[in-house]
Amino acid sequence: MINWENLDTLESYKKLLSLKQQVSLKQVLNADRVKKYSVKCAAGLTYNYAAKQVNNQILKVMQELADEAQLNEKFRALYEGETINTGENRKVLHHLLRGQLGKDVVENKKNIRSFYKEQQDRIAEFANNVHEGKITNKAGEKFTSVCQIGIGGSDLGPRAMYIALENLAKANGTLKMDAHFISNVDPDDAAAVCKTLDLSHTLFILVSKSGTTQETLSNQLFVKSFLEEAGLDAKNHMVAVTSETSPLANNPDYLDSFYMDDYIGGRYSSCSAVGGTILSLAFGPKAFADFLDGAHEADKLAKNKDIKKNPAMLDALIGLYERNVQGYPSTAILPYSQALARFPAHLQQADMESNGKHVNRFGKAVNYATGSVIFGEPGTNGQHSFYQLLHQGTDIIPLQFIGFNENQNGKDITLEGSTNQKKLCANLVAQIVAFACGKNDENPNKTFEGERPSSLIWGKKLTPASLGALLAHFENKIMFQGFLWNLNSFDQEGVQLGKKLTKKVLAHDIDDALKEYSKIFDI
Amino acid sequence: MINWENLDTLESYKKLLSLKQQVSLKQVLNADRVKKYSVKCAAGLTYNYAAKQVNNQILKVMQELADEAQLNEKFRALYEGETINTGENRKVLHHLLRGQLGKDVVENKKNIRSFYKEQQDRIAEFANNVHEGKITNKAGEKFTSVCQIGIGGSDLGPRAMYIALENLAKANGTLKMDAHFISNVDPDDAAAVCKTLDLSHTLFILVSKSGTTQETLSNQLFVKSFLEEAGLDAKNHMVAVTSETSPLANNPDYLDSFYMDDYIGGRYSSCSAVGGTILSLAFGPKAFADFLDGAHEADKLAKNKDIKKNPAMLDALIGLYERNVQGYPSTAILPYSQALARFPAHLQQADMESNGKHVNRFGKAVNYATGSVIFGEPGTNGQHSFYQLLHQGTDIIPLQFIGFNENQNGKDITLEGSTNQKKLCANLVAQIVAFACGKNDENPNKTFEGERPSSLIWGKKLTPASLGALLAHFENKIMFQGFLWNLNSFDQEGVQLGKKLTKKVLAHDIDDALKEYSKIFDI
Repeated sequence: MINWENLDTLESYKKLLSLKQQVSLKQVLNADRVKKYSVKCAAGLTYNYAAKQVNNQILKVMQELADEAQLNEKFRALYEGETINTGENRKVLHHLLRGQLGKDVVENKKNIRSFYKEQQDRIAEFANNVHEGKITNKAGEKFTSVCQIGIGGSDLGPRAMYIALENLAKANGTLKMDAHFISNVDPDDAAAVCKTLDLSHTLFILVSKSGTTQETLSNQLFVKSFLEEAGLDAKNHMVAVTSETSPLANNPDYLDSFYMDDYIGGRYSSCSAVGGTILSLAFGPKAFADFLDGAHEADKLAKNKDIKKNPAMLDALIGLYERNVQGYPSTAILPYSQALARFPAHLQQADMESNGKHVNRFGKAVNYATGSVIFGEPGTNGQHSFYQLLHQGTDIIPLQFIGFNENQNGKDITLEGSTNQKKLCANLVAQIVAFACGKNDENPNKTFEGERPSSLIWGKKLTPASLGALLAHFENKIMFQGFLWNLNSFDQEGVQLGKKLTKKVLAHDIDDALKEYSKIFDI
Repeated sequence: MINWENLDTLESYKKLLSLKQQVSLKQVLNADRVKKYSVKCAAGLTYNYAAKQVNNQILKVMQELADEAQLNEKFRALYEGETINTGENRKVLHHLLRGQLGKDVVENKKNIRSFYKEQQDRIAEFANNVHEGKITNKAGEKFTSVCQIGIGGSDLGPRAMYIALENLAKANGTLKMDAHFISNVDPDDAAAVCKTLDLSHTLFILVSKSGTTQETLSNQLFVKSFLEEAGLDAKNHMVAVTSETSPLANNPDYLDSFYMDDYIGGRYSSCSAVGGTILSLAFGPKAFADFLDGAHEADKLAKNKDIKKNPAMLDALIGLYERNVQGYPSTAILPYSQALARFPAHLQQADMESNGKHVNRFGKAVNYATGSVIFGEPGTNGQHSFYQLLHQGTDIIPLQFIGFNENQNGKDITLEGSTNQKKLCANLVAQIVAFACGKNDENPNKTFEGERPSSLIWGKKLTPASLGALLAHFENKIMFQGFLWNLNSFDQEGVQLGKKLTKKVLAHDIDDALKEYSKIFDI
């Protein structure tokens, strides 16, 4: 029996609230703690929380909270197909894209995991046929590039994943096709991308679950006009990724169609056909399968009741402690890997769209802070930018570092006795310690108070498997936080109002204030 | 006589504190207000604040605060060469890069404005010679690409400005050279960029004021190794941008050197040789001169005492009201223009590095919040991502919209009766109203409370001149906020500690905790 209770009704949460400002990082951070406060993640990754403001007492109450909030039971209910997305009356099944976690989820005699697997197999076959030249352009030439048309979850996740693996594939000689993305309804986006493409050798992927997304259909039309100008027939250059019931499904305007369903939210769709089609075409089906395996391994860890064996759950609880007990307003994601340049932007959507809610899953306003602002840029770049505020500003911003022992390209250079990769890692280590321990100085302007908490996810190298594990870690963290806050993390009503008003503005069916704003833009 | 007083000692600030939660946007927003709450910026831009939570009473107190805090006098002191950057004992003279605002600034008989102008002229001549094929590679062939090696302010600003104008230049046929950037010490950054370049026709710009920036020198070495592998001599392919006293100045390893000085902070250097060299090479000296003119026009507006004629000062005061009176924790920058994709990242540095400080200009801790987290992504992309939290989250995040009537490429498409550019603008208008006015619904999950304040900077088209004006608007806003908070906005001690610790990590001269972290990375 699952109880969906607000956070502030739980006894263990009240206990946690009494444990504010318990830990001075300057006092506790030492080698022993760095070793001990460490949890194994999937695919060779490790979650280290030695520089977080927690101690054994706080961790014990966090475990109680995890148990009292039934995080384990709620996760099981989710992956076994209960209607967790109550607002839209839908199951939430992105975990099944990566593997089976519990009992079969069957609907209308259809096994959902089998359906997802079938789409992956179809995509793999299609990608292989493209790579082998069995599916070609009209002139019989191989497609060499792929371009995704989609917005929001159909763009941010797949784009971040592609960028994360592009240089590794180039270094390994395994890049099958280079990938591009068109998302913004700003016509300058599509025009700029189309101008750089060799259109006759480009395959476009149109992604829209409903088949009615305004930006995406507008951009499709834009792309079609470019193809026509180049004397090409769009239907030889496009595949669709959509739901089986959309107008894009089984449509002769497309070479082929691949399907997801309503149980895959946009921001959780990187592992579905939305990410799978472009990643399989770019890197080959094997790399995409490795990516899914890494994610599945992380999902299995998320089933552990013991928070010390469940890094996503532990991360969620520490984040909640920082947000609701310590009162910190936002979180920075700081990957020390240029390949993860757009990973913070993806997490920004995944997190803020999931948990940026002020009513609980029953529509009642909650009395505590929920999702916070998520932002970030790769290190060391950020060090020369917004880290000033992180070190010496008036707010404390919790930090999530990510790093790897090895770089992807294999190529490096030695200057003053160290490689660039060693310098990169040395910077990362130095920042964690600087944020935690600070520094006294006679000049107060050069004094660092420290006590800025951070955690670190680190691994040997960013590969398809470790990237999948990294993605699933954060997806599961967000899910557990949604459970703790008693939110529905899987709808997004906040994006709907703007869509409706936009139509009114375009139809001139607007009030006076709107008209004045509209005049500004001569609409 | 200028008084540098803390914000909370000012009478008008105490008055402002009493004016919390005065304005309901739902009640006040109408066509008349949209017309009235509007201030002309430079280069055809307008700052509209109708959807901000201010009224005539609050604006009156803001004017008093501007006067009491001597914003006008402090700005004059700055551009006339007083030592405003007290921590580093330096003048702050980036305004002189764009034109003369007050009396001449002369040091050791050197007129600083003349020095800056001289560098611009030298850069213009150099760029013209490159474009005309008078300066070529060793084979006598024209350089076609340019690549900047720099980090922080030597990267973010110039990169954002280049991206902002690239597609306009392509559409106009005025792109002289395509530009690229290498910044991160992560060796995968330099390797990925170098692999895409036609090295024999690429000119590199090494940017480091001190000539000693670790990341930049490491990346230079990396680039040199690529050039050598390609059988090219680096000294035929590199220019330096640095200070006259740096080891890079007048160095035979470079084709030429262009100079800034200590009075130009990194994050304010887009208008100096740091931005000027790459922008003049990419777009021609005329475009760069237009960019400076737009910025200079904005600087002249910033001299007005009347906040209704000084959009940067007004914006600064509204931002302060939101941060210190209303208590909002962060600000989102939302450009409805794909060309401004990296403009929020530049503002993130400009703002957070300038005002992310907790001691005043005399080194005393302040008792009020200063700089906040700045983040953002272009619309409409963000609408399908983090806007959920902006609309329905538990925190209120003030918003800064930016938009333009026309797109840059000229190319557009009509679907369902409207062009993509009209759809883009309609989305922008709809969002402002949705955030301000919200919507009631029987379903509390579909209810929008509204009362989310936003302002809008809009213009006809994004051009070199309007981009310059936009940049200067924000630079001046940040400066005025620094004056109000009584901070030194022009140093960045917060970035120094990490540098020192990094050297220790690399030298193994570290304590036990560091060693354990270091072991993680096998350093």
